[in-house]
Amino acid sequence: MPLLVVGSIGIDTIEAPTGVATDVLGGAATYFSYAASFFTPVRLVGVVGEDFPAEHRRLLESRKIDTAGLDVRRGGKTFRWRGRYSADMNSRETLEVHLNVLADFNPRLPESYRAAPFVFLANGAPATQLAVLEQMHAPRLAVADTMDLWIKTQHDDLLRLLKRIDGLVINDQEARMLAGTDNLVRAGRAIQAMGPRFVVLKKGEHGAMFFSRDETYVMPAYPTPDVIDPTGAGDSFAGGYMGYLASSAEPSDTGLKRAMAYGTVTASFTVEGFSLDRLAQISRADIDRRFAEYQNMTAF
Amino acid sequence: MPLLVVGSIGIDTIEAPTGVATDVLGGAATYFSYAASFFTPVRLVGVVGEDFPAEHRRLLESRKIDTAGLDVRRGGKTFRWRGRYSADMNSRETLEVHLNVLADFNPRLPESYRAAPFVFLANGAPATQLAVLEQMHAPRLAVADTMDLWIKTQHDDLLRLLKRIDGLVINDQEARMLAGTDNLVRAGRAIQAMGPRFVVLKKGEHGAMFFSRDETYVMPAYPTPDVIDPTGAGDSFAGGYMGYLASSAEPSDTGLKRAMAYGTVTASFTVEGFSLDRLAQISRADIDRRFAEYQNMTAF
Repeated sequence: MPLLVVGSIGIDTIEAPTGVATDVLGGAATYFSYAASFFTPVRLVGVVGEDFPAEHRRLLESRKIDTAGLDVRRGGKTFRWRGRYSADMNSRETLEVHLNVLADFNPRLPESYRAAPFVFLANGAPATQLAVLEQMHAPRLAVADTMDLWIKTQHDDLLRLLKRIDGLVINDQEARMLAGTDNLVRAGRAIQAMGPRFVVLKKGEHGAMFFSRDETYVMPAYPTPDVIDPTGAGDSFAGGYMGYLASSAEPSDTGLKRAMAYGTVTASFTVEGFSLDRLAQISRADIDRRFAEYQNMTAF
Repeated sequence: MPLLVVGSIGIDTIEAPTGVATDVLGGAATYFSYAASFFTPVRLVGVVGEDFPAEHRRLLESRKIDTAGLDVRRGGKTFRWRGRYSADMNSRETLEVHLNVLADFNPRLPESYRAAPFVFLANGAPATQLAVLEQMHAPRLAVADTMDLWIKTQHDDLLRLLKRIDGLVINDQEARMLAGTDNLVRAGRAIQAMGPRFVVLKKGEHGAMFFSRDETYVMPAYPTPDVIDPTGAGDSFAGGYMGYLASSAEPSDTGLKRAMAYGTVTASFTVEGFSLDRLAQISRADIDRRFAEYQNMTAF
């Protein structure tokens, strides 16, 4: 079933111990869309400037990604980010950020998008995420991501959002900050109690945790020896997660668990190259093969 | 089948965000023995001073732990360690360390111990670990732990040890140091290539990884919300791991995998109290119940 994603699309320059990638396609909604497109048709809502390269748009359209919701601003410039990873690639610093057209992103959903049964609100201002939800016709499953900036600056809006969504995807440091506790199990449970039916807590190279009222579980990351660039891993994880759920229609407990494994495996490909390079080389069959390997690896 | 462990026994004082525990039973071989004793008979070799409290010895003897190999030095003092954990309990600093009788620990195995089919060389000088192996009559499975100090100061002895053991248990930071790479998958494989048939890489709250020539796999830690004191988690993990292997006779590939899950679950109890407090409250049935829960949690 169709999966709608709303979020950032950008041009990244990435400095990693493995090399430098200049002016490559990035952004949360980009990684999410591409990852999800292995599983289900995707409808993308985002904003770019006139400078957005045609090849990037073509790359997205070469997949099952509908770009009718891509707002191209006349005379505007695309969001740009430049970052540098530490030697172990577990932390990064932002060297430059130019919001450009993203600064006044007020997503208007095409009418044809509003009935999408699955929606993912990629990291963005909670007020904007809420405004997107207002335009939707009762989606079956609405999931959002967030970040430290919004926890600090738009706390009330974020709390309102948490009461409106089915699931929250959040990384470990941000979960600690939002819940005010260092223990990740306590943090995940506390955030779940703030409203969403479930919380998926991303731990990067250490995997992910799931919390609902009745369940807590954990999965390790797929152990790839070829980490080239971690950028977009979390968004690809979310894309694989939501993509699988949308493809399997009803988000049962078992479905949510398999979705987490699919998200994990999809993200493991993303980090094996810069930008979408590695994802662009693989097919759904590669994902399924690694899924089977991962399943075998973690069973005992 | 009997499992021999050789290593430190000490008196710890622990400062954690959850409280302070003064002069409690600690030491790698202590945690290992107690954890392993849920699975198999344990033979303990270590050294303590005359000041070693009788209650501590009784606690060990109340389990299936043979203390005939416990060397009590007349006029000597027991090894002491004092440490402080960070707020998130993921790092700690050593405030005081007094090696005392551990400084000249030259383990002599009782004759009855030398035929033990399973042996664990807890963290100690590689030369000492090698000297223990020399006294053994061809054990079926010899596994060792090590630490940064020996990687730096006794590198050659450590490399000799690696060629003599079946398995190495090592934590993530130390694996990075020994292998000279930040990627843990590459590090684990590189260390395995140095000699041991398998490497178990411990990641604390993030679980553990396994590397043999043909297999790589990962398991998350059991997600306990009640982390009181992480001291001894790694040694308890090793105790559960080796204890299960010794109880199941032949270390098959499947056996090694289940052993890792048992190690994980056993360690998850250890961190729920200071010293051996939590382990002393539980039975094998509690471990098996949590094992089943963990198995269910990680299956998809």
